Amino acid sequence: MSTFDITEHSHRRFNPLLGEWVLVSPHRSKRPWQGQQETTEKDTRPEYDPGCYLCPTNVRANGETNPDYPSTFVFVNDFAALQAESPAGSFTKQGLLQAQSERGICKVICFSPRHDLTLSDMETSEIRKVVDLWQEQYLELGALDYISYVQIFENKGSVMGSSNPHPHGQIWAQSSVPGEPAKETEQQEAYFQQNGRSLLSDYLAIELEEKTRLVVENEHFVALIPFWAVWPFETIIIPRRHFGHLGQITDEEKDAYADIMKRLSSVYDKLFDTSFPYSAGIHQSPTDGKDYPGWHLHMHFYPPLLRSATVKKFMVGYELLGDPQRDITPESAAERLRGLL
Amino acid sequence: MSTFDITEHSHRRFNPLLGEWVLVSPHRSKRPWQGQQETTEKDTRPEYDPGCYLCPTNVRANGETNPDYPSTFVFVNDFAALQAESPAGSFTKQGLLQAQSERGICKVICFSPRHDLTLSDMETSEIRKVVDLWQEQYLELGALDYISYVQIFENKGSVMGSSNPHPHGQIWAQSSVPGEPAKETEQQEAYFQQNGRSLLSDYLAIELEEKTRLVVENEHFVALIPFWAVWPFETIIIPRRHFGHLGQITDEEKDAYADIMKRLSSVYDKLFDTSFPYSAGIHQSPTDGKDYPGWHLHMHFYPPLLRSATVKKFMVGYELLGDPQRDITPESAAERLRGLL
Ligand SMILES: O=P(O)(O)O[C@H]1O[C@H](CO)[C@@H](O)[C@H](O)[C@H]1O
Ligand SMILES: O=P(O)(O)O[C@H]1O[C@H](CO)[C@@H](O)[C@H](O)[C@H]1O
Repeated sequence: MSTFDITEHSHRRFNPLLGEWVLVSPHRSKRPWQGQQETTEKDTRPEYDPGCYLCPTNVRANGETNPDYPSTFVFVNDFAALQAESPAGSFTKQGLLQAQSERGICKVICFSPRHDLTLSDMETSEIRKVVDLWQEQYLELGALDYISYVQIFENKGSVMGSSNPHPHGQIWAQSSVPGEPAKETEQQEAYFQQNGRSLLSDYLAIELEEKTRLVVENEHFVALIPFWAVWPFETIIIPRRHFGHLGQITDEEKDAYADIMKRLSSVYDKLFDTSFPYSAGIHQSPTDGKDYPGWHLHMHFYPPLLRSATVKKFMVGYELLGDPQRDITPESAAERLRGLL
Repeated sequence: MSTFDITEHSHRRFNPLLGEWVLVSPHRSKRPWQGQQETTEKDTRPEYDPGCYLCPTNVRANGETNPDYPSTFVFVNDFAALQAESPAGSFTKQGLLQAQSERGICKVICFSPRHDLTLSDMETSEIRKVVDLWQEQYLELGALDYISYVQIFENKGSVMGSSNPHPHGQIWAQSSVPGEPAKETEQQEAYFQQNGRSLLSDYLAIELEEKTRLVVENEHFVALIPFWAVWPFETIIIPRRHFGHLGQITDEEKDAYADIMKRLSSVYDKLFDTSFPYSAGIHQSPTDGKDYPGWHLHMHFYPPLLRSATVKKFMVGYELLGDPQRDITPESAAERLRGLL
């Protein structure tokens, strides 16, 4: 028997942020494909679309008119999954049926008045305004006494369920801490208690030394493919300095944050010569009033594409019933992205 | 303030099988949709397709020729994610990078020689042969000393990543217990220790009393939408009798299992007048040689469609970064399915 080689043999990798495993099958990328292909949207959108409910001056579903906004624009989602007025209450039967009412606020953030842009097309100075708004919203929503967590995210591309191609993101703020950040809280706080440093500081130090999974970096941020990545070209943006939330970011770091997003999204677009779809979002400390010294803010990018602009990775049967599974290694994916710089 | 109403207000529901929550937004089904629509495959497949690597007598990618099989056919996946020969080994760095080699076997099961059928088109007696093969495979693979878990599943439809429309399923058997069944093991064994009955027996008793989430049943099995369902029309098939794995199913129960699958998949096909896509799979006790008195075999169906044959639910931004989220309630989804009986 040969010796275990991480670039060749099936193995599981551990995600210390979640405490979960992913199955890696490095040899599996050659299988034939007769299944579904995505349709690529050739980008022929106009700067302004009179039928778009996110463009300036247009009327939305609830009858309100969007202002003629010059940069960003935020409003409460007309079809919000969470409502501020939900009455408190709960329901249980033998502990096997359990429901609890959940209050919250869902907002939509337009990144730009231009219908035809995406983050990667925007100037760094324009992206910086998006960062400013994220910070403002995190602080404003997090300050509400019934909000324990503020999830900022973007679904980009119709393959990621985005219901409108106008460049926009969302914020869902709610009274509980959802499952993913709750697991990250547990893991990060335990690590901090034990080591006196944040989990992501120590992890970043290893990655800066090994270099094989790095993608782009600047003075304040590093974007890399995590050792435990699930999606083929998944990345994480980690600030070099350990801080827990957007209330603690400096002015200079905000510029650097805009810069790293511009660079990362540009590399992504080059990979398959397409406006690269993904879901991305910021994980930061809960706003439930407790202290979280171990929390280290970061941003996840979960892009579905695997081999081309039309062939994606499906998280289906085994992945839904067993564990997430990936074919190419994080190291080879990072190498490909670095090759496009 | 009105009182908390589970059919109207946002709330979280608890999944006792996994120990996780799902966000439910009953009021949210009316939002407009300008996003991606699936293409529906009109079913014009021939009974035999000379280009299909799963049809009888055809040659597969590795040069082997399929036999002229009359009912089911099983073979080792030519592009397996797991390999029996993976050498043992592990890799770690400060506990933050951790990898472990994983051995396993991936098989493909053709449900029928007919290229143009799906489970719902097959006779119950033909489906029964699939159940027989599942049982045989679970016992055969589970008996291997390095196999701790046998995951039987089906990805149906190109939207669920099925790479070939020929009716087939898969089996991934491996040396670790994957995350989902590991969580179910923990929850079920803890419940059994505490109550002396299986979690799913007690849960099924509640459902048979409440009736609102039932879909179809027969003498030995019940198919229902779990209280904590994530996917719009997700169902679970639960045997009335508490047993842990396919090695313990009786002959009569095997017939009834074939019958309930036939009935459930037929109702599904009626819902949006389409060959209904899903990922489905059997969860049963690990084969690691330990004793699991609390395990209660069951089968999950995770179908993606939400509103029509072309509009599905996307598990994207919030769902990947926060918690799974659903729009229609399990109760209203079950009512719709029952209305088609
Ligand atoms: O082996 P198949 O059917 O080609 O592959 C399908 O099922 C697998 C197991 O759920 C997934 O890993 C693949 O992404 C999916 O396309
Ligand atoms: O609000 P949108 O963009 O229409 O909706 C999209 O993002 C939401 C949050 O991830 C998901 O729940 C929806 O399934 C998806 O289509």
